[in-house]
Amino acid sequence: MTPKPFQPPQRILMGPGPSDVHHRVLSAMARPTIGHLDPQFIVMMDQVKSMLQEAFFTANALTLPVSGPGSAGMEACFVNLIEPGDKVVVCVNGVFGGRMKENVERCGATAIVVEDEWGTPVDPGKVEAALKANPGVKALAFVHAETSTGVESDARTLCELAREHGALSIVDAVTSLGGIPVLVDNWGADATYSGSQKCLSCTPGLSPVTFSDRAVETLKARKTKVQSWFLDFSLLTAYWGGGAKRAYHHTAPINALYGLHESLVMLHEEGIEHSWTRHSMMHQALRAGLEAMGLGLLVAEGARLPQLNAVLVPDGVDEALVRTTLLNQHGLEIGAGLGTLAGKVWRIGLMGQSATPHHVTTCLAALEAALLAQGVKLPQGAAAAAANRVLLV
Amino acid sequence: MTPKPFQPPQRILMGPGPSDVHHRVLSAMARPTIGHLDPQFIVMMDQVKSMLQEAFFTANALTLPVSGPGSAGMEACFVNLIEPGDKVVVCVNGVFGGRMKENVERCGATAIVVEDEWGTPVDPGKVEAALKANPGVKALAFVHAETSTGVESDARTLCELAREHGALSIVDAVTSLGGIPVLVDNWGADATYSGSQKCLSCTPGLSPVTFSDRAVETLKARKTKVQSWFLDFSLLTAYWGGGAKRAYHHTAPINALYGLHESLVMLHEEGIEHSWTRHSMMHQALRAGLEAMGLGLLVAEGARLPQLNAVLVPDGVDEALVRTTLLNQHGLEIGAGLGTLAGKVWRIGLMGQSATPHHVTTCLAALEAALLAQGVKLPQGAAAAAANRVLLV
Repeated sequence: MTPKPFQPPQRILMGPGPSDVHHRVLSAMARPTIGHLDPQFIVMMDQVKSMLQEAFFTANALTLPVSGPGSAGMEACFVNLIEPGDKVVVCVNGVFGGRMKENVERCGATAIVVEDEWGTPVDPGKVEAALKANPGVKALAFVHAETSTGVESDARTLCELAREHGALSIVDAVTSLGGIPVLVDNWGADATYSGSQKCLSCTPGLSPVTFSDRAVETLKARKTKVQSWFLDFSLLTAYWGGGAKRAYHHTAPINALYGLHESLVMLHEEGIEHSWTRHSMMHQALRAGLEAMGLGLLVAEGARLPQLNAVLVPDGVDEALVRTTLLNQHGLEIGAGLGTLAGKVWRIGLMGQSATPHHVTTCLAALEAALLAQGVKLPQGAAAAAANRVLLV
Repeated sequence: MTPKPFQPPQRILMGPGPSDVHHRVLSAMARPTIGHLDPQFIVMMDQVKSMLQEAFFTANALTLPVSGPGSAGMEACFVNLIEPGDKVVVCVNGVFGGRMKENVERCGATAIVVEDEWGTPVDPGKVEAALKANPGVKALAFVHAETSTGVESDARTLCELAREHGALSIVDAVTSLGGIPVLVDNWGADATYSGSQKCLSCTPGLSPVTFSDRAVETLKARKTKVQSWFLDFSLLTAYWGGGAKRAYHHTAPINALYGLHESLVMLHEEGIEHSWTRHSMMHQALRAGLEAMGLGLLVAEGARLPQLNAVLVPDGVDEALVRTTLLNQHGLEIGAGLGTLAGKVWRIGLMGQSATPHHVTTCLAALEAALLAQGVKLPQGAAAAAANRVLLV
């Protein structure tokens, strides 16, 4: 069989990421490839770095996009900072906390797990107890915005607790950056990583990471080599560091970086505070519509992420069939539940370019139709009306 | 300062990679992003896998593009196959053999280094001696096409030696795939990795990898967990494996994979054997032109890679000034020497879409002008004439 060029279908992306990518970013990806040591490329790298610092609200010199997806960014934080024999307090309240635990153990370190129920935030009281009970902990790791549940944890308080106990903080901001405040310097976060394909609405494949000076000192003071050559920041910073001379480490993903650059330019143009407001308003509109349909959210008010809404599947509804109907009839992708939440929730993303009135109303209308088709009793049109009451304010 | 969209300059890429990317691949990168679990995306993944099998001349079921650059593909091979305490014979005849040694040591294993002079192929006699002297070696690792020197090593013989001694073979085919034969099944290579941005002429950022059944069995029989979660093939194959059901591991770099798909479609359309012939012919034309200018190659005839030509810098020539002149006056990028060859060679790539008559003649003309500008005595126009004698056959 002769392969043909792939023409993707037209989708509306409202799952847990990737989110819809703006045509400006897609166009940027298609610009001619240049060399990774080209003087003009280095100018672009400096702009990416400075726009990432702006987005992370940090002056951290070590701020760069890792050449891999969010999981690679996560791994970069652990392998650079954690050494065999270290102890790390890991907060697990969803899939990504569990992945952090895996990372700690694969570094030859011990994970002291603080568990919270999926759909609830990390409990700072338990974290404090774990830090007190385990003197000499190297780091506290937690997920700011759990993509598997839609819950926000109190990053400021957790970073403070880490610092008070002489531990570094490692913060998963994959789903938060651009959607809600990520205030690295203000929190005193030591290692923070994100992803390109969530609220930045770039294509997937890059992971912005930022290290505080304290984290950089920890890296410099290591007794052992970083177990990953590819992710070794003591080498990579010779390429991403300042100045006109850049030492080759690995070939940077040129066109993906064009895309990230453009998405950061767009974020700058909008203003990050405005982006937060937009995410919040779209969430309120979606929630109003969902409630008008009788649908509830997994997460209690106050801890809900605007950009990731875990919607409880009503009894008797075939949740997989609803997703298939949305995809096939409306070209609309929403996410399934993961892990213990599989079959119990849908995950509706309102991230970046997918946080618009068009997305909210399309999703509500499609969901209403799919539920009606399964015989669910609904006040027809109520969802749209409720959403519009928020949107038209 | 308000950041602006980045408009890259127009370049002609004849360095050690990235090579020029065809507009078909660039256009594919700009197609709308869809989800990494979208049924249509899974169809595309299957096509990528099958075209990679074709390019690698293998039926290996575990064949996939790692979501990172060639260095991540290299690391994937080592971390999946090598465990603490293992012994690995590593052939070092350039930069990338040295990087393999780093990988082995960071896996907690011992590297038994077989050194050959930079610019010469790996000596199978020395390798055999090392394998005999060290019974129980887990793997033999070598670079098929050394990008730092332009030398080809005898992959078939080296893979045979590994098998005879009960060791796995780990083959760096970053610069070879698509440019010269990479015959995975015929050689009996166990773990082979490549890069997207060399003779496949895709954008940088992906690393095709293929594992033999023997390698897969070694992975399954591990006593310890793979030290990288991100690169753990025992998890990743649940996403890239066959069938309609795919388990989420990490978010695949969707648009980068569109690009790789298109570059593989183009390779299939051309026919890989034809691509090898084209690379060989362009190399002969370039070499004829270089010789007509009195320029020699680092590597002896018989071991020269057509796609990477290490050209000896003549005495008295400012090699950095030549590269700057080519870049600024002609938009032409060629590579500098790395490591011990810094300042001593230029590296001229003829990879993928950069292996055309246009590239050969442009490079020769620009190089002639740059050398004349430095006062080098040259028979003017001789290079073009010599190249044309090859090209017009």
